[in-house]
Amino acid sequence: MKSLEEELAKARAAYRNWGRWGEDDVLGTLNFIDDEKRARAASLVRRGRSISLAQRFGEDGPQNGFRGRINPQHYMKDTGSDAWAETQGFPHGFGGCDDHVVMPLQSSTQWDGLGHIFDRKQAWNGRPCTIVDGTGDHVTGIENMASQFVSRGVLLDAGRALGENGELPDGFAITEEHLEQIISLQGPTSAVGRGDIVLLRTGQLGRCRRQGSWGDYAGGAAPGFSFTSLGWLHRTEIAAAATDTWGFEVRPYEFPGHVFSPVHQIAIPNMGLLLGEMFDLEELGEECAADGVYEFLLVAGPLPVTGAVGAPVNPIAVK
Amino acid sequence: MKSLEEELAKARAAYRNWGRWGEDDVLGTLNFIDDEKRARAASLVRRGRSISLAQRFGEDGPQNGFRGRINPQHYMKDTGSDAWAETQGFPHGFGGCDDHVVMPLQSSTQWDGLGHIFDRKQAWNGRPCTIVDGTGDHVTGIENMASQFVSRGVLLDAGRALGENGELPDGFAITEEHLEQIISLQGPTSAVGRGDIVLLRTGQLGRCRRQGSWGDYAGGAAPGFSFTSLGWLHRTEIAAAATDTWGFEVRPYEFPGHVFSPVHQIAIPNMGLLLGEMFDLEELGEECAADGVYEFLLVAGPLPVTGAVGAPVNPIAVK
Amino acid sequence: MKSLEEELAKARAAYRNWGRWGEDDVLGTLNFIDDEKRARAASLVRRGRSISLAQRFGEDGPQNGFRGRINPQHYMKDTGSDAWAETQGFPHGFGGCDDHVVMPLQSSTQWDGLGHIFDRKQAWNGRPCTIVDGTGDHVTGIENMASQFVSRGVLLDAGRALGENGELPDGFAITEEHLEQIISLQGPTSAVGRGDIVLLRTGQLGRCRRQGSWGDYAGGAAPGFSFTSLGWLHRTEIAAAATDTWGFEVRPYEFPGHVFSPVHQIAIPNMGLLLGEMFDLEELGEECAADGVYEFLLVAGPLPVTGAVGAPVNPIAVK
Amino acid sequence: MKSLEEELAKARAAYRNWGRWGEDDVLGTLNFIDDEKRARAASLVRRGRSISLAQRFGEDGPQNGFRGRINPQHYMKDTGSDAWAETQGFPHGFGGCDDHVVMPLQSSTQWDGLGHIFDRKQAWNGRPCTIVDGTGDHVTGIENMASQFVSRGVLLDAGRALGENGELPDGFAITEEHLEQIISLQGPTSAVGRGDIVLLRTGQLGRCRRQGSWGDYAGGAAPGFSFTSLGWLHRTEIAAAATDTWGFEVRPYEFPGHVFSPVHQIAIPNMGLLLGEMFDLEELGEECAADGVYEFLLVAGPLPVTGAVGAPVNPIAVK
Repeated sequence: MKSLEEELAKARAAYRNWGRWGEDDVLGTLNFIDDEKRARAASLVRRGRSISLAQRFGEDGPQNGFRGRINPQHYMKDTGSDAWAETQGFPHGFGGCDDHVVMPLQSSTQWDGLGHIFDRKQAWNGRPCTIVDGTGDHVTGIENMASQFVSRGVLLDAGRALGENGELPDGFAITEEHLEQIISLQGPTSAVGRGDIVLLRTGQLGRCRRQGSWGDYAGGAAPGFSFTSLGWLHRTEIAAAATDTWGFEVRPYEFPGHVFSPVHQIAIPNMGLLLGEMFDLEELGEECAADGVYEFLLVAGPLPVTGAVGAPVNPIAVK
Repeated sequence: MKSLEEELAKARAAYRNWGRWGEDDVLGTLNFIDDEKRARAASLVRRGRSISLAQRFGEDGPQNGFRGRINPQHYMKDTGSDAWAETQGFPHGFGGCDDHVVMPLQSSTQWDGLGHIFDRKQAWNGRPCTIVDGTGDHVTGIENMASQFVSRGVLLDAGRALGENGELPDGFAITEEHLEQIISLQGPTSAVGRGDIVLLRTGQLGRCRRQGSWGDYAGGAAPGFSFTSLGWLHRTEIAAAATDTWGFEVRPYEFPGHVFSPVHQIAIPNMGLLLGEMFDLEELGEECAADGVYEFLLVAGPLPVTGAVGAPVNPIAVK
Repeated sequence: MKSLEEELAKARAAYRNWGRWGEDDVLGTLNFIDDEKRARAASLVRRGRSISLAQRFGEDGPQNGFRGRINPQHYMKDTGSDAWAETQGFPHGFGGCDDHVVMPLQSSTQWDGLGHIFDRKQAWNGRPCTIVDGTGDHVTGIENMASQFVSRGVLLDAGRALGENGELPDGFAITEEHLEQIISLQGPTSAVGRGDIVLLRTGQLGRCRRQGSWGDYAGGAAPGFSFTSLGWLHRTEIAAAATDTWGFEVRPYEFPGHVFSPVHQIAIPNMGLLLGEMFDLEELGEECAADGVYEFLLVAGPLPVTGAVGAPVNPIAVK
Repeated sequence: MKSLEEELAKARAAYRNWGRWGEDDVLGTLNFIDDEKRARAASLVRRGRSISLAQRFGEDGPQNGFRGRINPQHYMKDTGSDAWAETQGFPHGFGGCDDHVVMPLQSSTQWDGLGHIFDRKQAWNGRPCTIVDGTGDHVTGIENMASQFVSRGVLLDAGRALGENGELPDGFAITEEHLEQIISLQGPTSAVGRGDIVLLRTGQLGRCRRQGSWGDYAGGAAPGFSFTSLGWLHRTEIAAAATDTWGFEVRPYEFPGHVFSPVHQIAIPNMGLLLGEMFDLEELGEECAADGVYEFLLVAGPLPVTGAVGAPVNPIAVK
């Protein structure tokens, strides 16, 4: 592989989608999903089984302060104990609880927004990065995508196809060849095409659970998409892709020296590709392995926080 | 109507579902949804049109401090301005943003959890209210329902059926008779039965938008379910019901004196019925009025915050 | 008065203290306080009466969302109700409570940090404003001043000296002449000189309390320092100045058109003067009026939040 | 030592101050401070040197999630980068920053409030623990003490007097005999009496700094007050006591089995003694060792958060 700067330059030239959907676009590759695609995705539902792909949002999550990310902090504002102690003052036997949360929008299962990453001070579609200031993303905020993440989902279970005991080791870079190999192994329900949302299971999350420890899940070494897979991510015209890892791409990175998230740098601001992270693909992986069907309806609209550059989501796969 | 205490006693006796799904149940009326129901719900998708029913989560929301609820506060942790000013220290032209949120879990579009309301110190299924203490709901936390809210949705557009200009006035109590009248007017796609999720549009949200002011949307007068509709909510065996208002039930209440949320007091701890609030039903209302079809696939899994007594949701209707 | 731009230019030329305490300075006019000053300030204590000048930090404060500022949100993490309900699990009769807060650092009684305001992209001492990015003030953060705010305090009770019933009307611009008039009326204990911390009571906070309503205390019209008082603020070589209002300077501003906080624009980045806001000077005002002594020991170190551009404080006057 | 239950019973009988200052008291041992005490404390100031005893409040603090405590999270709402990028929209060259914080009130240097700890469901002065519910401490909230913490401070430098290199090892229980030994070694300026605020330096904080790691400072083993020192804490009629450790009392505890904070259990609800934690006594320790004077004016009013059971403070010692 050439130097990172050369690779970035080549990837920009090859995969940049700026202007593809007009200069006002705020949806990126979600434009690949249309009504027909969604209708066909719904028709994939056979058994009626629904599976949440969200990790729990709680104080025992994996965040450790890296990039300033803490785990969700849950605060009760009224409690059942208060009702029990009769301090609430409600009439006729009524009692109630209320709660609040403080959390990084990317502390658990999440979509990266288009304003999350910049390339040489440019955001998606060639906008200046200053569209995101201290008061949020004023153009491509995640609230614009509230209804968009409905499509055919495809699980590519790299852990089962390429790993041992269903898990890839940390640092395993998943290349285009690997992706095609998985599809071939899994069969025709895994074929990937325009508008699909690809879910890549590495097994890292399952390993953390099996070991009973997050280790350095949040920000440490992990299996993930190789920089060389960007061509595939672009050419397939998928609408979005997500992994069961903290950071989508392989870590450590495939380049020497001071490097940070080069796959993101091409995928988000240049391709306009929506990336998902920390998806819980364990149950889905078991279900797909059991019935041999790797396609399903996926409904995964993020919480539409105004101006957000990422947002939590409870993705639902329906088989 | 008799005194509230008498009505509560009667309603408890008539509508209590404790034990119906076993003593360990944490799902309440969501038990009415099964795989077959979900599969049939998916088959309702024809046009492939997806509609988010979430209001935006932002600082310009309706909350005014009532019940300690503020609007979501959005904090940027890194910004595009920082990338512009070159203070981030990332290599190879990379720049990035991260953001956090502070919010009441019931500050915008939301499902009430089963631990949200108690009746005479008892929670759903007869548990003591002390299952919810300062560290959360230790039994019926909303995380248990992450994959459950997938079913046939039915829009009952009370605003269009019973109101003027598509809007009901504040204080309008929607009774069982009104509900049947709406169903009759809207036609057979509105028939309500076991496992359905009923969305009741009053038009109040639309009125706020039209008037350009929240007024006292959060906690003030509103149209909503009448206490007398509890029999219908119970008998139809629906899985959940939601409105476009702050508080689900009609306000002011239908009883004199010091009263607080009597419909909640029966529906949540006694029936185990899931209630949704602040759903944005404006676009859905227009779509259904246009094509005359009031049923659709609804996927509305809440953000699974551990131990939460309510949770934000981005509900997606697919027609 | 000339145009604002001309006045700003003149004020910059006349009052800029850049370089006065070296190019690395992070304390601004707090440099006017030295050990001798502090020792003499302590010697002013006679009666031993201590008075907190802090407003309460709570949800019933004046903030209304202007400038994104909410009132402090107080969250209990464990409660006495939990201890009562015996859900805590502690041994030997132990019970406990813990609590958290979410708040703008300038939501109540506070010092503005030197990184709070810029003038033409320049911060205090001529630094570029980019010293404050999304991760805080990396040079002049308020933590540098943790031990500095100890000096002689002087109350200038403009409300009593110039107003009716001890209160100035909103929009009253307090000029240098007014300040000298107050000092003259109050007598020699009010003389203002190097290193003093001046507390200017307008009576606006008392009026809000008397009327039982915050009105638009937070960001609306108010009495306050006139732009023409900047010369006095500079010449007296005071270490800091604070008011009982939201915004220190008079509002509406004394210039037509689109104007925002011109006194701040000169005082903070150019003079390096520390400004305090929302001080509760009601009790202190009564005490000073009663004994005729307007000088006292003032200890008012801000909470040293790392990188903060302002910080809450519980200022203590000891007479 | 006898069993913990026996010791607790004996200590309750011997040290309980309930009713000592009337049944409505909300100040506990702060009642030992009067105007004369404060005036004499101010007269101790000779050099005019002021020393902040606050640790910095930031994300690099010691909290690790134990007892739900995180480190303060600092959020910028506007930034200098925004001013640089010209996204703020202010006129005439004005630029500004604002910031918010999320933090446990006891995440750094702090006073425990009287509602922080209960003994057999009873709070200070014999009140039921239900005075503190999900909405805060409705009787003894820390806001009642805003102006009280002004008195003579006395540093007892146990680290220097009893330790090696100025540090006591973890688990070192400081008894009454140790306290008297320190006073004797340090000389007459260390004599402890009515109304004093005692600051006990163990050196643990200094050790963390020296080692460049918090280790398990927050909630782990530590030197601290022995259960047997309660008689001294009571008999001396001090107003408050604070340490440079996370938890005031020695850890591990001096009793076998499941034990939690027995010194707190007697000191707070029974004696009404105000306890401070995480004070930074490093600089003060050096100053006192240098000049041999261990008494000083201490001004340490907590941030008056309404209904709080503890509050951050920037304590200022003036010598």
